[in-house]
Amino acid sequence: MKVELLSIGDELLIGQVVNTNAAYLAKQLNKIGLEVAYISVSADTKEAIIEALTMAHSRANLLLVTGGLGPTKDDVTKESLCAFYDDQLEEDPEVLAHIEFLFDTYIQTPIRPANRTQALLPKKAEVLKNEVGTASGMWFNHLGVTAIFLPGVPREMQHLMETVVLNRLKSMSSLIIRYRTLMTYGLGESAIAERIASIEEELPAELSLSYLPNFGRVRLRLLAKHTSESKVKELLAHYGDMLVSRIRDIYFGDEEDGGLAVQVLKAAKYANMTIASCESCTGGQIAAAITEIPGASSVFTAGFVPYQTAQKIGLLDIDATLISSYSTVSAEVAEAMALNTRLKTGCSVAVSTTGNAGPSKGDSDEPIGTVFIGISTEARTYAQKFMFGNLRERVIEKASLKALEMLYREIIK
Amino acid sequence: MKVELLSIGDELLIGQVVNTNAAYLAKQLNKIGLEVAYISVSADTKEAIIEALTMAHSRANLLLVTGGLGPTKDDVTKESLCAFYDDQLEEDPEVLAHIEFLFDTYIQTPIRPANRTQALLPKKAEVLKNEVGTASGMWFNHLGVTAIFLPGVPREMQHLMETVVLNRLKSMSSLIIRYRTLMTYGLGESAIAERIASIEEELPAELSLSYLPNFGRVRLRLLAKHTSESKVKELLAHYGDMLVSRIRDIYFGDEEDGGLAVQVLKAAKYANMTIASCESCTGGQIAAAITEIPGASSVFTAGFVPYQTAQKIGLLDIDATLISSYSTVSAEVAEAMALNTRLKTGCSVAVSTTGNAGPSKGDSDEPIGTVFIGISTEARTYAQKFMFGNLRERVIEKASLKALEMLYREIIK
Repeated sequence: MKVELLSIGDELLIGQVVNTNAAYLAKQLNKIGLEVAYISVSADTKEAIIEALTMAHSRANLLLVTGGLGPTKDDVTKESLCAFYDDQLEEDPEVLAHIEFLFDTYIQTPIRPANRTQALLPKKAEVLKNEVGTASGMWFNHLGVTAIFLPGVPREMQHLMETVVLNRLKSMSSLIIRYRTLMTYGLGESAIAERIASIEEELPAELSLSYLPNFGRVRLRLLAKHTSESKVKELLAHYGDMLVSRIRDIYFGDEEDGGLAVQVLKAAKYANMTIASCESCTGGQIAAAITEIPGASSVFTAGFVPYQTAQKIGLLDIDATLISSYSTVSAEVAEAMALNTRLKTGCSVAVSTTGNAGPSKGDSDEPIGTVFIGISTEARTYAQKFMFGNLRERVIEKASLKALEMLYREIIK
Repeated sequence: MKVELLSIGDELLIGQVVNTNAAYLAKQLNKIGLEVAYISVSADTKEAIIEALTMAHSRANLLLVTGGLGPTKDDVTKESLCAFYDDQLEEDPEVLAHIEFLFDTYIQTPIRPANRTQALLPKKAEVLKNEVGTASGMWFNHLGVTAIFLPGVPREMQHLMETVVLNRLKSMSSLIIRYRTLMTYGLGESAIAERIASIEEELPAELSLSYLPNFGRVRLRLLAKHTSESKVKELLAHYGDMLVSRIRDIYFGDEEDGGLAVQVLKAAKYANMTIASCESCTGGQIAAAITEIPGASSVFTAGFVPYQTAQKIGLLDIDATLISSYSTVSAEVAEAMALNTRLKTGCSVAVSTTGNAGPSKGDSDEPIGTVFIGISTEARTYAQKFMFGNLRERVIEKASLKALEMLYREIIK
């Protein structure tokens, strides 16, 4: 079984939009045992779409196409597939009634002629009704290929996948594909590779190991494929744990159990601790990362973003002379921010950030990229200094990750 | 000129990683007049890479390949391209010296044998020295195709593009490609299409118009291609402004001038106003979106994330009886949060959010997805109620966007 994902849209070819649909589809298909062999992108023209469909039909058995099904002139997928499959459009009365219903009930603007054309659908296709939008899905079984056309709007595409498509594709594969991704911090990939070399060499054929380096972190992914669910679980548990035993000092949990923020929340819940944050240079990213997780409110009490220096003094009672003596970007101020946040919120552990994210230096003489991260618990208050380069977004991202890492280390103590 | 981007990596085929490299490359190539015709993804195996290279060489003249150049066993790009180009690896002494230098100076762990193999490079390639990493780029001019191989780590790939590759590719195109994306809120794409129909019909051949709907917003992208830079600018200004004149009530600025948060900052700077935020359900996302923008500190004073109900009372002096009478998720509490934040920080306009993002209901009986957004200025304090569905991430995302939109509307008044 060869599976191809084809995304239609100029916005992808000009880099205006990142292809999250392909990532979503690949993940969902993996869960039902289908491996994706090809991902491709086509322009919004009839010629390009037909070329891409021709290519896909020559190399894949299952094809999932997204995009180009809207009501406006730049959407030409239906026209193109009619040319490709030698098909014609005809009005589907049920779909038309559904579109009219959506306009009456939710959209509450008069229905447009363009919206009615969305009920024109190819005769040879089985129509997949889109409950949450006006663009229907289409299912073709032609030329030896199962080809499924879905809208490009992520919410509508995902709804059709989860309510209709995945259930029907399930029977196509008896394979179980699962993976386990070990998150590590603090060691390069070749150093990790040396530590785990003897395990990597004796991995069974059902397992493959990949190194995913980025942002100074390396993730180790162990991918298992087998027809037995229990065998897959056993392989991932056994070899995953073997790997962990070699990298325990740099291991921060499995990504599948959630990212670093999830680990922080879990660890805090387990230790019966509460958390608060006080962010200057990270501007709320730490609070946002933690509160994105369901159930955060039982652990995360509150966050401050005292962005301007005057607010650090006014809202958090940081001593103005401390700031004038050491500057806002200093270990002393980071410590005071963490300490006062803990005292004001009554939490068990508070984390703080203060730094120069750039491009200009702000109220401090420290070079751009300098960040101090503070931690305060009842037992101690301390801060660490970091240099995170000179790209604003990266400084913020790296500082947020490092703060979560320090929080995690403090909590599991 | 046909350009193809080929990304190598199982992480893309299993959906673990979103293909941001392709989006970055497409954007950069567009800036120097090169249009991308194909984007494809290949698995991490020699067979798959050779198949993808064969395909790309049959349809493209310029090929940019990323990924698979690391020091570990799962990286087989060099091996594959040697087979494809009938080439051999040999040690590049300069590259080896550079790798040794990086280990001595920055990485500060002993160099591994695997790292030394990164100095083994194909004889037929011109080596592109990677100043910020150990994986070199490679430039081939074979079989009628210019093929450039770059590391998959975004920072390293981007560094090579910006310091070497783009300068050398510039001469390949005399085309100027630019676009202008009008951000709109509040109207569906078919309704917009009707309003601008007469403009869309008479667009000159150098321009194309696309509708990008998502999150209840529609972006209108006007893409211009021409050999004259001034002509391109003139076309975008003229037709873009014509479009804006038809949609002034729903238009929120050009995306190229920055997203909604940038518009908010600009408008506030222009009006000489300062901003503060008080976020419950959005958990810091609004503050994070604003403070990510360079220069935010002159406008954004401070943010609060009083996540737990007790902190709303303790940190923001929200009247406990107000909460017990109306619940935390209410217009009354949203208004009090905005008002007290404005008074505590001394800013000109404060925005607040309180809602049930789900999956559990928290301290309120309002259904999941209910969000109140409050605004407070010296002239008035008010709140609006929204229903944002039942997916936690979407509720947070939509509430943050809507809050920025309300902030913007208040500021430009």
